[in-house]
Amino acid sequence: MTAQANRQFRLKQRPTGRAKATDFDFVEAPFPTAGAGEAIVQTLYLSIDPTNRIWMSDMEQYMPPVAIGEVMRGGGMGRVVASNSGHWQVGDIVGGLLGWQEYCLVRERDMFAPRKLPKDLPIPLPAMLGACGTTGITAYFGLLDLCQPKSGETVVVSAAAGAVGSVAGQIAKIKGCRAVGIAGGSEKCRWLTQELGFDAAVDYKRPDWREALASATPNGIHVNFENVGGDIMATVMRRMTLGGRMALCGMISGYNDSTPALGDFSPVLMRRLSVRGFIVLDFAPRWEEATSQLVRWVVEGKLKHRETIVEGLENAPAALNKLFDGANIGKLLVKVAA
Amino acid sequence: MTAQANRQFRLKQRPTGRAKATDFDFVEAPFPTAGAGEAIVQTLYLSIDPTNRIWMSDMEQYMPPVAIGEVMRGGGMGRVVASNSGHWQVGDIVGGLLGWQEYCLVRERDMFAPRKLPKDLPIPLPAMLGACGTTGITAYFGLLDLCQPKSGETVVVSAAAGAVGSVAGQIAKIKGCRAVGIAGGSEKCRWLTQELGFDAAVDYKRPDWREALASATPNGIHVNFENVGGDIMATVMRRMTLGGRMALCGMISGYNDSTPALGDFSPVLMRRLSVRGFIVLDFAPRWEEATSQLVRWVVEGKLKHRETIVEGLENAPAALNKLFDGANIGKLLVKVAA
Repeated sequence: MTAQANRQFRLKQRPTGRAKATDFDFVEAPFPTAGAGEAIVQTLYLSIDPTNRIWMSDMEQYMPPVAIGEVMRGGGMGRVVASNSGHWQVGDIVGGLLGWQEYCLVRERDMFAPRKLPKDLPIPLPAMLGACGTTGITAYFGLLDLCQPKSGETVVVSAAAGAVGSVAGQIAKIKGCRAVGIAGGSEKCRWLTQELGFDAAVDYKRPDWREALASATPNGIHVNFENVGGDIMATVMRRMTLGGRMALCGMISGYNDSTPALGDFSPVLMRRLSVRGFIVLDFAPRWEEATSQLVRWVVEGKLKHRETIVEGLENAPAALNKLFDGANIGKLLVKVAA
Repeated sequence: MTAQANRQFRLKQRPTGRAKATDFDFVEAPFPTAGAGEAIVQTLYLSIDPTNRIWMSDMEQYMPPVAIGEVMRGGGMGRVVASNSGHWQVGDIVGGLLGWQEYCLVRERDMFAPRKLPKDLPIPLPAMLGACGTTGITAYFGLLDLCQPKSGETVVVSAAAGAVGSVAGQIAKIKGCRAVGIAGGSEKCRWLTQELGFDAAVDYKRPDWREALASATPNGIHVNFENVGGDIMATVMRRMTLGGRMALCGMISGYNDSTPALGDFSPVLMRRLSVRGFIVLDFAPRWEEATSQLVRWVVEGKLKHRETIVEGLENAPAALNKLFDGANIGKLLVKVAA
């Protein structure tokens, strides 16, 4: 290993609206040194998620916001390149909160210390950050635990061509449900129905998408896996059945705004909905269960995965905005090293 | 029985804003005749509830809106004065949807046919429409079934001096919780803490009520029994604990508006709340269980009840507006006959 520096993004200011490159200092920090119980992980891939944008803000959130001057927080996957810990060996592949940087100093004692991946993975590494990684696990628990979909029920997933939504819809199909995805653009909608097996896909960029949603859900909507918020959420909720269940996974439509996107609680009352918010961290003790099942489904061909990969750490801020443009299909990753 | 006519309110037009007397035709209909399987019930008390206002509107709701020209729908309690049915005897006291009228023709075969009350009630009749009636039952299932409060948890109830809220808070106390009520005005707040045993009451008409709520809930809010919606709901939700539970019983702050009061779903996500809407009708098969328990608590002195009684059927529309003025304490009734 000959690297002399560690390029990293440090948060300079909280973005207004979209995150811009100028909201960060892109610096060369000294190469870190592993003390006792520590190791150095070289970032291979960064997971680019809506939550990155939340962490940059000071809105109410489920972890402390990234402090000004701190390395930008981000999930990722990397390779151990130096170790002063019995826990990690050089060459191990690990996943966790590596940050937007080339090298991450990791500590055994950290609550969020990266987890080692099995040696002989039956699926490609990027899928371990996507369909079988945190986003897949999010879909798994959000749909199965919170919504308990039953065979024959109609499950609607928003941001259905995204990393979480594409997995949630496929799990709904595995469980015998009618899966209806909402996504932006005909390419995504075709992917959902022709590749992933969704029963229907609704293109919210078409002016008649509300009617299309109604046609695609003739028996109403029993389960809503909500990723978007705003108008899409309101429209779906007005088609939910009595006693319908909704997992509130995210509300990406509001993450670039300083004021929250408001929603209508009336259908919750009138339709006796059950609405539950969740964060994948809530299920941390059961991640292993989800990962094994997701990997098994991928190997069996029941769960398809796709990644949109942006090359180069320097492009991380621009990559994040692809999420808000809907420019990615499946999991969005930044490839930092090979 | 010598009555020759049946005074009744028929809905003339859907109210804009508050219901007004001119939104109704107050007419003298012919005295009804009981055919086979039917009986005539003389209305003694009408239960005046926020849902009356909903039924007058064409907003999304859980029963069909009252049609223009129809007798205004309303719950109540009455005495059977004529019967052509083996199911009811003259003199029976019954409760159900009698309507805003002096006499109601009831049919055995109706889904909502009035239920007979036990002969030797240990509590006054008005309490059977309030603390031990539909509103008490609403509090019972909404709090116990939907929120499952545990001893030591903090339960906040909005519209706490109302018919549902006053019972919900007392049940929270019976279950060993810290009960905090939100109500308008010092008289109501005193009633909650000094008479009903709430641990604290917050007067939302005071400018510093948000700070008062924070002081009254030092450990956050585990359970929210929501009756009001709008700003009060939003403020409570922002103090809820991780994994907090919220029963959405009503949103009275919006019932006079044509557009729904919007709310912020962000705390649902970030605090992983569970929000459940419900209507007391959902629990109809278990009403007997609730009524017996509520009556037992009243007899044991654990559950106190209070009614605000307006005299005269002709005052029903004005009585309804008392709810929106917060002019009632406890259950609001219209006394139609003795």
